[in-house]
Amino acid sequence: MRVLVIGANGQIGKLLVDRLQQSGHTPIAMIRSSEQIEQFSTQKIQTVLGDLEQSITQLAAQIVKVQAEAIVFSAGSGGHTGADKTLLIDLDGAIKMIEATERSGVKRFVMVSAIGVHKWHDDEVPQEVKKGSYYSAAKYYADCWLEVSKLDYTILRPGRLTNHTGTGKIQVGRDVSFESIAREDVAEVIVSILDKQNTFGKAFDVINGEQLISEAIHSI
Amino acid sequence: MRVLVIGANGQIGKLLVDRLQQSGHTPIAMIRSSEQIEQFSTQKIQTVLGDLEQSITQLAAQIVKVQAEAIVFSAGSGGHTGADKTLLIDLDGAIKMIEATERSGVKRFVMVSAIGVHKWHDDEVPQEVKKGSYYSAAKYYADCWLEVSKLDYTILRPGRLTNHTGTGKIQVGRDVSFESIAREDVAEVIVSILDKQNTFGKAFDVINGEQLISEAIHSI
Repeated sequence: MRVLVIGANGQIGKLLVDRLQQSGHTPIAMIRSSEQIEQFSTQKIQTVLGDLEQSITQLAAQIVKVQAEAIVFSAGSGGHTGADKTLLIDLDGAIKMIEATERSGVKRFVMVSAIGVHKWHDDEVPQEVKKGSYYSAAKYYADCWLEVSKLDYTILRPGRLTNHTGTGKIQVGRDVSFESIAREDVAEVIVSILDKQNTFGKAFDVINGEQLISEAIHSI
Repeated sequence: MRVLVIGANGQIGKLLVDRLQQSGHTPIAMIRSSEQIEQFSTQKIQTVLGDLEQSITQLAAQIVKVQAEAIVFSAGSGGHTGADKTLLIDLDGAIKMIEATERSGVKRFVMVSAIGVHKWHDDEVPQEVKKGSYYSAAKYYADCWLEVSKLDYTILRPGRLTNHTGTGKIQVGRDVSFESIAREDVAEVIVSILDKQNTFGKAFDVINGEQLISEAIHSI
């Protein structure tokens, strides 16, 4: 599949384009600055310049131009930039990409969200989610928007991200504990679910665990 | 009507509870701190303690408790606080109140939004809206959420707010110029539309203009 990766220059994004390429997919890295082209082109990875402050029309045109067959949204501030960027990238940027994808005719959309944010409006919000406050809210609303879209979406809510070597083993669910997952495993999960129809229209937390990725994905 | 005013201690909120009382309605001021009770009780205005960081369940319970028949949302940072508060109050707080209102069974909901924010995702975003960036986005999403709700909503998008004496004359529309309106006139417009069914399910900009408020409202 031709997979447009939004946030390709981020930590998960970089691992993801590598894994996509190794798996026989064709990653296309959306990057904000032409200075980022070289690192991708030396790997023979196609790039497209674009940023989430463009209009939905412009974003849709880029999706069409690169002939994407799937979109992975892994852009984001990760909760460490200011709230203005969280609102404009994690929330508004994500929603603009969802709208652009719908307009482009592409159906498949994978969202990298964050563990537990689906509980943002619960009566008892988990401390870890509450602590993230505006970041949790931003991710929650982007996910809500995607869930009412007409896309074949999957929302992946990874736990605390680490740079450990991937274990290939995970735990998935709607209510898993707030534990960690290696970014390598997140990338691997994304590649694994891309064409798995049983994950369409689904949202789940994912942390490192005991089950092989392929088995865990199959059980969703 | 028994009207629950969210943001009653704000500049528009204070004017609004006064005008509601003068017009024979029963305003109920939702306030965050018990220190704010006195200023309202000396005016014989009922108060209810509550804030937008409570759960939707708690907010719904308060709406029921005070037997509100309509909700006016005029809370907000006005674009001058940090983006974190904008996200948590103007966007998330508003959406929580919309959800709480639906749960409570109350139908009527008036949102005080901001001029032009419905153009946030247009190909050509007006400079004034673009400049507001995260504030415009926050108001846009709260309004979007309200528009797909089942409430009898009206979204009022006032221009630049002033403390001038109200003129009683306005201009309404979807595409009015970025001019000003007195907060007194905004309060008057809210009181005027409360029970006007022709304004249900509508959203409009409002600035000071040439038409009497009653006539302008009638034409919506």
